[in-house]
Amino acid sequence: MRDLSREIRSQKKTIGLVPTMGYLHEGHLSLVRAARKECDIVAVSIFVNPAQFGEGEDLDRYPRDEKRDKQLLEKENTDVLFFPSDKEMYPEGYNTFVENKDPVSDILCGASRPGHFKGVTTVVAKLFNIISPDKSYFGQKDAQQAFIVKQMARDLDFPLEIKVMPTVREEDGLAMSSRNVYLSPDERKQALSIYEGLRKAEEKIMLGEVSSNVIKDGIKAVLKKNKDIKTDYVEIVSAEDLSPVDIIKGKTLIAVAAFVGKTRLIDNVVVKI
Amino acid sequence: MRDLSREIRSQKKTIGLVPTMGYLHEGHLSLVRAARKECDIVAVSIFVNPAQFGEGEDLDRYPRDEKRDKQLLEKENTDVLFFPSDKEMYPEGYNTFVENKDPVSDILCGASRPGHFKGVTTVVAKLFNIISPDKSYFGQKDAQQAFIVKQMARDLDFPLEIKVMPTVREEDGLAMSSRNVYLSPDERKQALSIYEGLRKAEEKIMLGEVSSNVIKDGIKAVLKKNKDIKTDYVEIVSAEDLSPVDIIKGKTLIAVAAFVGKTRLIDNVVVKI
Repeated sequence: MRDLSREIRSQKKTIGLVPTMGYLHEGHLSLVRAARKECDIVAVSIFVNPAQFGEGEDLDRYPRDEKRDKQLLEKENTDVLFFPSDKEMYPEGYNTFVENKDPVSDILCGASRPGHFKGVTTVVAKLFNIISPDKSYFGQKDAQQAFIVKQMARDLDFPLEIKVMPTVREEDGLAMSSRNVYLSPDERKQALSIYEGLRKAEEKIMLGEVSSNVIKDGIKAVLKKNKDIKTDYVEIVSAEDLSPVDIIKGKTLIAVAAFVGKTRLIDNVVVKI
Repeated sequence: MRDLSREIRSQKKTIGLVPTMGYLHEGHLSLVRAARKECDIVAVSIFVNPAQFGEGEDLDRYPRDEKRDKQLLEKENTDVLFFPSDKEMYPEGYNTFVENKDPVSDILCGASRPGHFKGVTTVVAKLFNIISPDKSYFGQKDAQQAFIVKQMARDLDFPLEIKVMPTVREEDGLAMSSRNVYLSPDERKQALSIYEGLRKAEEKIMLGEVSSNVIKDGIKAVLKKNKDIKTDYVEIVSAEDLSPVDIIKGKTLIAVAAFVGKTRLIDNVVVKI
C-alpha cells in the first residue's frame, strides 16, 4: 500500500481516503462520493480497529460483510481498497499510541468509552502514513471523532485536509450506522426517538429557548418514553471547541448517546443562533 | 517546509533528515555526511524541543548558536535548514502526543527523565510529517532514543528508514555532546571517566566476565573516583530489545548516565560476545 501510494503521489495525483470499519452504508458511500468528486484516486480502508474498542464492547460481534462492501465500493468507482489484518496493523511488540490529551477526549463518548479516541487517533495516524492521502473524509455523525482527528492532524502536522460530511439518515430519520443491524424491529422503532428528541430540541432553540438544561431535559424525556432505551449522555457543547455550554449561543452541538437494548447509538445536530 | 518537501518528492528526489537541537558538533555533522552520501536532498532541523525537557532540566540554558550552526551546515552542503519557532511547533491549544508505552520507555533515561521520550517521539513524528524524509539519521550515543524512534516509526508506519550512526568522540574519548560546553575544565577532565569505565567494562567482558553486576560495579567504581560525578544509572541491557540482562551474552548495550557537576551526560558501548 505504501509503495502504491508513493507511486500515485509521484504521478502528482491526489489521494482521497475514506477510513471505515466496513459493513458499509449510505453514510460511508456519501464520503466515497465526496472523495470521488475532489480527488484523482479514491482509497477506502476497511479495518475493524481493536484498539478503539473497550472491554465488554462489541468488537467480536461487530458486523462484517467483505464481499458486499467490495461490490458497493466497485459501484462507486473506488480505486483502492486497503483491507489489512489485525496482525499487519498491530504486530507483536506494537507499543506506540497517538493520544489527544485535550479534556475534549474525556467528555461525551470519551467519558463512556475510555481509551476509545486513543485507539481512533492511533489507527488514523497509521492509515495516514500508509496511504498518504491529500484529503480524508469523516462523517458528522461522529462529531467528536471528527473534531479530535482534525486536532490530531493539525497538531502532528499531517500534510492533508480533514473533510467532515453531513450525517446521512434513513428515510424515517435514524442516523445511518453499521450498528443499526443489531436492532430488533421493536428496538428499531424506539431508536427513532433519538433523532426525534434532537429535532424537537432544535425546534425549541429556534423558538428562543437558550437554556442547555431545559433542552437536555426535553431530549431525555423523549428518550424515557421507550422501555428499551437507556440514555448514555445528552450534552450541549460549543461546535467550535466542544466545551460545554449552559446558555446556548452561536454554533452549538447537541449530542446524544443511548443504549437501545444492548446497542449503543449516537447522533447529533448542530444549531446556529 | 511541507510545500518544499512535496515539491522535492514530486521530482522523485530522496530526502535525508537529520533532526537536531542545534549547537552542532562533529556528531551531528557525521549524520549530515551520512545523509549527504545516501540522499539527494539533505535537510537538517534545529529545534530545542520544550516537550522533551522535564521541570528543573536545562531547557532555558540549553546552548544555542544559530549563526555558527548555519555556517557548519553550509560547509557540509546541507540543502535545507528547518528552524521553526516554539509557537509554530506547539501553537496554542496543542494537545496531541505520540507515546511509546513499551516498558523500554521507562528504564534508563526514561526513568531519570519521565516524559522525555514522549516529547521526543512527538516532535520526531511532527518533523517526519513536515519534512517527509526517506531516511532519518540518529546517533548511537542516544541509543535508547534511537531504539524508541525506530519502534515509533515502525508502529505508526512512517514510510521511511531510521539510520543509527556511530558515536563520535573527542580525541580523548569523551562522547561529543552539545552539553559538554557546560563543563568547567576540571569537570571536563573528570567526565573522561565515563568512557574510561565503559572501555574497562568492554575489556573485562572480552576477557570472559559475564556477570552484569560485576561489570556495573566496575564502572561505578571508576566513576566514584571523581569528586564531582554522581552516577545516575549504569545499566546492561540486550542491544536487541533493551531488556535488562544479568548474564552478558550476544549483542549487549552498556549504558551510563552521570551528572558531572550539574551537567547530565550519557554514553554507551555495544559489546558482542
